[in-house]
Parts: sequence; structure tokens; C-alpha cells
Amino acid sequence: MRVLILGGDGYLGWPTAMRFSGKGHEVAVADNFARRRWVEEAGSDSLTPIATLEERIEAWREVAGRGIEQYVGDISEGTFIGDVVRDFAPDAIVHYGEQPSAPWSMKSVENAVATQANNVIGSLRLLWAMRDYAPGAHLIKLGTMGEYGTPNIDIEEGFIEIEHKGRWDTLPFPKLPGSLYHLSKVHDSHNIHFACRIWGLRSTDLNQGVVYGIETPETRLDERLLTRFDYDELFGTALNRFAVQAVIGHPLTVYGEGGQTRGFLNIVDTLQCVELTAVNPPAAGEYRVFNQFTETFSVAELAEKVRHAATEVGIDAHIDRLENPRVELERHYYNPTHTKLLSLGLQPTLLSETLIESMLEVIRRYQSRVLEDVIAPVTQWRPTPLGKPAA
Amino acid sequence: MRVLILGGDGYLGWPTAMRFSGKGHEVAVADNFARRRWVEEAGSDSLTPIATLEERIEAWREVAGRGIEQYVGDISEGTFIGDVVRDFAPDAIVHYGEQPSAPWSMKSVENAVATQANNVIGSLRLLWAMRDYAPGAHLIKLGTMGEYGTPNIDIEEGFIEIEHKGRWDTLPFPKLPGSLYHLSKVHDSHNIHFACRIWGLRSTDLNQGVVYGIETPETRLDERLLTRFDYDELFGTALNRFAVQAVIGHPLTVYGEGGQTRGFLNIVDTLQCVELTAVNPPAAGEYRVFNQFTETFSVAELAEKVRHAATEVGIDAHIDRLENPRVELERHYYNPTHTKLLSLGLQPTLLSETLIESMLEVIRRYQSRVLEDVIAPVTQWRPTPLGKPAA
Repeated sequence: MRVLILGGDGYLGWPTAMRFSGKGHEVAVADNFARRRWVEEAGSDSLTPIATLEERIEAWREVAGRGIEQYVGDISEGTFIGDVVRDFAPDAIVHYGEQPSAPWSMKSVENAVATQANNVIGSLRLLWAMRDYAPGAHLIKLGTMGEYGTPNIDIEEGFIEIEHKGRWDTLPFPKLPGSLYHLSKVHDSHNIHFACRIWGLRSTDLNQGVVYGIETPETRLDERLLTRFDYDELFGTALNRFAVQAVIGHPLTVYGEGGQTRGFLNIVDTLQCVELTAVNPPAAGEYRVFNQFTETFSVAELAEKVRHAATEVGIDAHIDRLENPRVELERHYYNPTHTKLLSLGLQPTLLSETLIESMLEVIRRYQSRVLEDVIAPVTQWRPTPLGKPAA
Repeated sequence: MRVLILGGDGYLGWPTAMRFSGKGHEVAVADNFARRRWVEEAGSDSLTPIATLEERIEAWREVAGRGIEQYVGDISEGTFIGDVVRDFAPDAIVHYGEQPSAPWSMKSVENAVATQANNVIGSLRLLWAMRDYAPGAHLIKLGTMGEYGTPNIDIEEGFIEIEHKGRWDTLPFPKLPGSLYHLSKVHDSHNIHFACRIWGLRSTDLNQGVVYGIETPETRLDERLLTRFDYDELFGTALNRFAVQAVIGHPLTVYGEGGQTRGFLNIVDTLQCVELTAVNPPAAGEYRVFNQFTETFSVAELAEKVRHAATEVGIDAHIDRLENPRVELERHYYNPTHTKLLSLGLQPTLLSETLIESMLEVIRRYQSRVLEDVIAPVTQWRPTPLGKPAA
């Protein structure tokens, strides 16, 4: 299979590229290195010392004996993505090429605009490129469980059967996203669904939970193959942040009550899910949504797990409950369905204490690289000082 | 009330500006004249000879003795809309400032991108401007009934109560928009709902049906106060097109079976609805959706009505059923709720034969201006030749 990976230099994109390449597929990555730039502009850096894309590709060639093609450019601008799709002629396109941070999207009007322009227009140009040059290819799009928000009913996988006034229909599951970043993913989902309905494209939208983990079997092969690992307030995600905080003796930063419950999965399961999706493509014209996570935890539970595992490796970690910078329910119902990937054969890697301990060990290796002043949450969801009403 | 009208040089924007000004409100219009440019680029022109915005404002001052402020610029770029909102300090913002054509959005990747960038980013910058400079103002946003598509259940006004696995919630009504233009309006709706939920803004989203009509009481006062009237394949809407076609002896262009059913309203009712909405604002943090139309017709019914009225004024009109350039159901269930504006006091101006006859008379006045070669539908929803499958 010919697999094009957009955002192939990122946290998930690079390990995904190696996974497909290692399995014998022809792989190309496209990236404009925006993630590296955004993190640098925020004064932060990956915990892991990451090689350039060129160095990574060269190291992979040495280690695995396989080539990966690279395209450098911005999918939201001009003919770049059209040229790439025409040139590489992919069978599957794995689309990670988006601005991935909710707080980054809420920082300023320019960040909000950059997030929605980059993500929505980038994906729209991609859809049009597929329409013109690869109408039979399978778009595997990374969405997020955050598109749904926290409704008071069970969340289904993309669609819900509704009975209303004696009639029935199966319709897109209503969305209540919690940031301008999450909104960009909702917009993408609507655009992709349309392209499948009207142009006959085929796509799987992976509504992913919060990913944690620092290594995959491929990144362990050579230090030059490491993937990035962010722990700052903007690009770091809950468990990864807690683990770094524990290692450096920073209190674990729980926002508000910590009752916010989300779906989580290990980075190795992201790779497994994307691969399972790629080898089981939908029919032409079909738009599928898979809820991609393996477990749900509240933020407070997660912090407690990290605190406990830290104790086992001799770290005395403390939990801090900070005033919540976001606007979100801290107590809510949450029971999202996630059976479709399990039906395809997903074998979950659950969050054991051993697993957290091994994350803590790897983080310790790079402990001296941690920049402590990027950890505290600064970005506020509301324009006014925290605690005061908006209007 | 201080009323800011975005897209205030357009088909609905200009009559709305005069209406509010005539009622004694302080009115400003903002426009970048994109609609005039797009129509000109398509080789078309308004049937009615329209004055420049400056001439219109001057004529209105002469006729009504009232000033209207003007701001010229693009709301999707830079600080323009922030500057306008800060400078004018509106109590209500009526937002017509969007690319309004479905076929225009489907013509090319650049048109698709321009539509979603202009509409979504423009509205996003507006929301951020309100957040920073006018958090108490009321955003009256023009959406479209086309956001809903044609689901197999009754369409509610923005939200639907869903019972699912023994639990209940009231959630945004699921959307199945039929073009990249309609998608841009769905994206707007989600962004606006978010701004109300998170920033405490207040907004009414008017999901408008297809507007018809050529005159309002204010446009009749002076020829320089005429509003534009489009009849080409891109910017003309069903009834307006049929009326022009009848007058010039062109067959009425029904797409496919003509069973496509939509909500319609007279331009004078648009003004009435917007005014009723403005004088009955929602609470801070409230996001309301009103379905804004007065009657539903199938396209075939509408053509038949025009044909019949034409006969009465001595025109022998014919109906042509063209192969449908769009991808849409030609037979479907359609029963959208539309009670909220009626509850506020809307007095519908229904589509009588007399009304069509008077439209035909006005069109006859400008008959010599009709450009016949912009009438036939050219823009195809599918990339391949009509009738062949997309992939």
C-alpha cells in the first residue's frame, strides 16, 4: 500500500510513518514543521532531543533498510497538497497535519484564526486534491473525542439513530466542542462527510482520545528515531504532563475538581488503530467514524495513578488543584461507545502502574532538559480575569 | 439602538440598513464590495441598476433625512472588524457579510477555499471583536435552512431533544448541508454557539429560507435606493430566476424532477424578521436559532406558480426540466418547524399570484438589461461529467 502521512514529522506522525514503512508499505511524509515552530515560539521544547526530519529518515534507512519520501510544505496553501497527492498517488492518506492544541487556539484572535485556517482550509484543499487526483484513496483523518463535548447521553461513533415525532433517521451525532481547536475538527468532520456524500470519496474519521506515552517499538531502535514529547501548558497532554511534573518534583496540575472525564489511549495503540483502519478501508462514498480510545479516566484519577506509580519508583509527588483556566464541566456524565476498532481486532495496551513507571524512567533520562517555566497553565478560556463573569 | 450591518451593500443588507435607519436607529454599514466583484467576474450584473454605496447613502440622506455611516473593508482580514466594532460600539450587529452562493462555492478549489475562509474566518474575527470590544451586543447572524439538509425527521429550530438509551439531552440539531457554502454556515453556527457558551456573548442565528422579491418600501422611494437583483446561475435564487426567465421568454430552469422542497420568504419579511429579532434580544450567553421562512414549496410548484402568473400578464412561459447539476434528493420528507418568529409577531407576506405579477412588472422595466447567457446552469456538484459516478 502507498501511504501518505500528513504531519509526518509530529508526535504521532513520525512513529506512524516508521510503523507503515516497517510493515513493507511505501511511505511518504509531508510536513511544514509548524509544530516545531509553535513550540519554539512558546519558549518550550520537546523533552526528547529530536532529530530533523532528514536525519530521522536517514537513520530509518540505516536501521530498517527502508526509504521514506518527504515533501516539505503547507497543505493549507496553494497547490502544495494537490501536487503531493498527484505525485505520490497514495492508496491511504493519514492526516495528522493540523494545529493540535486547544489552549494554543484560545490564546489570541490570531492563534484562533491560524488554527481554523490551517486545519479547515488545509483539510479542504486535501479533499479537493483527492477529488481531482486520488478519488479512490482512503482518507484516515485524525479527529478528537473532544468534538462531542460532554452531552448527557451516551456518545455513539459518529452517528446516532433519532426517533422524533414518530419518524426515524440516522444522523451525525450532535457536537459540543470545548475550544476553537476542537471546533476546527468539527468543521473538518462536516467537510469530509460532505466529500464522501457528494464526491464519492472514502474516509475514516478517528475521534481520538488523549494520547500518552513516549516510546514505540520503532522509536526505541535508535536515539535518532525518538519522537517528540511535549509537557508544556500548550502542547502537553494530561498524563504526559503529570509524568514530567512528578519526575521534576513539580506538583501535578489538576484543573478544578478534576472530575473531567476523557478517553485515553497509549501511543502504541494509536499506531495499532491507524494500521487496522488502513487495512480495512471503507467502501467508496462511505464516511465512517471510530471512537479511538481504550479507557476513560477522570483527570483526578489520572493524577492519583501517576502519584502512586511515582511513589513506587521513589518519587514523592503531590497533587495541586488549580483554578480551572478552561470553561468545562468538572462533573458530568460520560459513556462514549468505542467498539468499532475492537471489532477490527484492536488489542488495548491498558494503563498499568508498570507502564507509568516505565514512562517515568524514560523521562528521568531526559530530566535535565525540562524547562520548568512552561508548565504552569497561563492561557485562559475567558477574556476576563479568572472567576469573573465574561460580560 | 446602534445597529451595525455587515454586508450592508448587498441584496438584503442595503434594504435592512434603510429599514433600521428609517425607524430611527443609528446605522452603520460595513462592506468590501465582494459581491459586486464576484458577480462582475462571472460576467453577470444586477438586473436593477444599482448605485454605489456612497450614492445610496447620499440619496437616503436626501430622501429620509438620515445619515448612515460606512466602513469599507474585509472582516476576514487583520484588525478591520475589531476596529469597526470598537469605533461604532453597536448594540446589535446584523451579519450578512458572507459569500452567499452554493454553486459559486462548488466551482473550483479556490472558490471553495475563498468561501470557507471568507465566511468562517470573517465570522470568527467578528466573534473575537465582540468578545473584546462589545461583549453585550446582540449578534444577528444570517444562517440558512440549507444547513439542515433534508433529514427524514421534522427539522426543529436549532436544537432537538434526544432520548437515547434511557437518558435525555437537548443538543444542536444534526446538520447535513448540501454544498461547501452551506458547510461554511454550519461551521459559523458551531463557532457562534461556542462564543455564547464560553464567552457569554448573545446571538440569534437566523436560518433563512430562499429569499425572493425585488422591492421593499424603502427601495421604492428613489431609483438610487434600489437593491441588487441577481438572476444568473450563481447568485440568482429560484423564484427570482424563474421570474426573469419568464419575462425574457427563456424556459424556466427546473433542476431534475423539481421535487426538491425548500422554505421561502419575501424580502420584506426578511426585514421584518431581522427587526423583530433585534428588538427582542436574547439574554447574555444565549444562542437562539430561528427558522426564518414563511412557506415551503417544491421547485416544480414554484415554477408552475410563475408560469401561471405569467399567463395572467400575457406571457406564455414554458418549463424545462434540466439534468440536475447539484447532488440532492429530488423527493424527500420536509417539515421544518418555524414558530419562533411567528411568536414574536411576524406577519407573513405570502406568495400570491398578484405578488408574482407585480414582480414580473418590475422586471419588465429592466428587461433590456438581462444578460441571457448567464442563466443556464453550468456549475456541476460532481467533478466528472454529469451522470457518471464520481469515483
